[in-house]
Amino acid sequence: MTYNNDYIVPLENITFFTSFAMTKKAIVFLANGTEEMEFTISADILRRAKVDVTVVGVELEKDKPAICANGTKILPDILLTDKELEGNLSYDAGVVPGGLKGSHTCRDNKKVQAIIKNLYDQKKIVAFICAGTLVAKASGIPKGHTVTSYPAVMDQLTDTYEYSQERVVVDKNVITSRAPGTSFLFALTIVENLVGKEAADQLKKDMLTSSVL
Amino acid sequence: MTYNNDYIVPLENITFFTSFAMTKKAIVFLANGTEEMEFTISADILRRAKVDVTVVGVELEKDKPAICANGTKILPDILLTDKELEGNLSYDAGVVPGGLKGSHTCRDNKKVQAIIKNLYDQKKIVAFICAGTLVAKASGIPKGHTVTSYPAVMDQLTDTYEYSQERVVVDKNVITSRAPGTSFLFALTIVENLVGKEAADQLKKDMLTSSVL
Ligand SMILES: [Cu+]
Repeated sequence: MTYNNDYIVPLENITFFTSFAMTKKAIVFLANGTEEMEFTISADILRRAKVDVTVVGVELEKDKPAICANGTKILPDILLTDKELEGNLSYDAGVVPGGLKGSHTCRDNKKVQAIIKNLYDQKKIVAFICAGTLVAKASGIPKGHTVTSYPAVMDQLTDTYEYSQERVVVDKNVITSRAPGTSFLFALTIVENLVGKEAADQLKKDMLTSSVL
Repeated sequence: MTYNNDYIVPLENITFFTSFAMTKKAIVFLANGTEEMEFTISADILRRAKVDVTVVGVELEKDKPAICANGTKILPDILLTDKELEGNLSYDAGVVPGGLKGSHTCRDNKKVQAIIKNLYDQKKIVAFICAGTLVAKASGIPKGHTVTSYPAVMDQLTDTYEYSQERVVVDKNVITSRAPGTSFLFALTIVENLVGKEAADQLKKDMLTSSVL
């Protein structure tokens, strides 16, 4: 049998095809004190883009909701300690919302750190918003990256990272953003990088986002 | 005793004072199928403005979360059927988020309709976003008001209301808006009308909202 070059699909086309054909999977972390807008906008927009989102509760009790930064009560899909998570670390993205107390819980949790570092090392997307960027540093995302965060925690990041005041920063596989008011831009930027620009643009239309994000 | 005009405080000063001194109270409705961004952004921003928010579950089971439009699991503070709500109808605002299924549940619920109509009749703020505006009509908010909504449900509203394509519409005590992407503007407009422009402006700064909402 002869080998026919016509059947060889160029690499970029395969990448393009699989990015639409295969369901992408993302973890979004949730703890007591997580900022509920940053969490909800991230999880909702990723799911609207057909990403398979698992909300992972950090240091929550079984069947108890996270009490978010401003009182919204949100239940995770699974807990960080669940066997389901242990056996299934094939995620395409990990997202850490802000909220000072929730970020600190994630920052100080060895298992969250290990998951974030593992995703980063696999060149998967790791995304942090607001005080969530503190988790990047605690997880060992190396020096040299450019990041942003909520302005109030900037001083805790400038010893390790190049710091930007942009509303969202994409530096290779590290995506960072600033505050509740930048959450739409943050989530849509994750979608653009994980699923594609077409999907992000369609969502902007469907959701009637502002002309300036 | 003589009556001294110096002790008479001008009416506008009293209004100004009480609007800051007295805690305002708002209901935000939550049902299965409620759009989680529209819900969360409204509840969170009102609470950031020191409004005492009660999340009222509509047709939910005790201790069960609402499964929102895109899968976020949110627990209400109380249920529509709770005695706590019965005896305490002194709210300053009622907010109905969108999400088609959640809006329909609220639209068809006689008790939600009665609460909204009662608030409206007392000249309290009634606020609807996305498909939530369908609840205004079902509750008997009268003809003549100008409203907006998610574009897809416009046709169900134009027989009763003047329809606007603006991202938010304030028509006396009726505030309406369009979609997840207009939720920040919607919630901040409620704050502006319920608490004051200063509070709304401060929140915009704190949350780093976009220059265009
Ligand atoms: Cu909606």
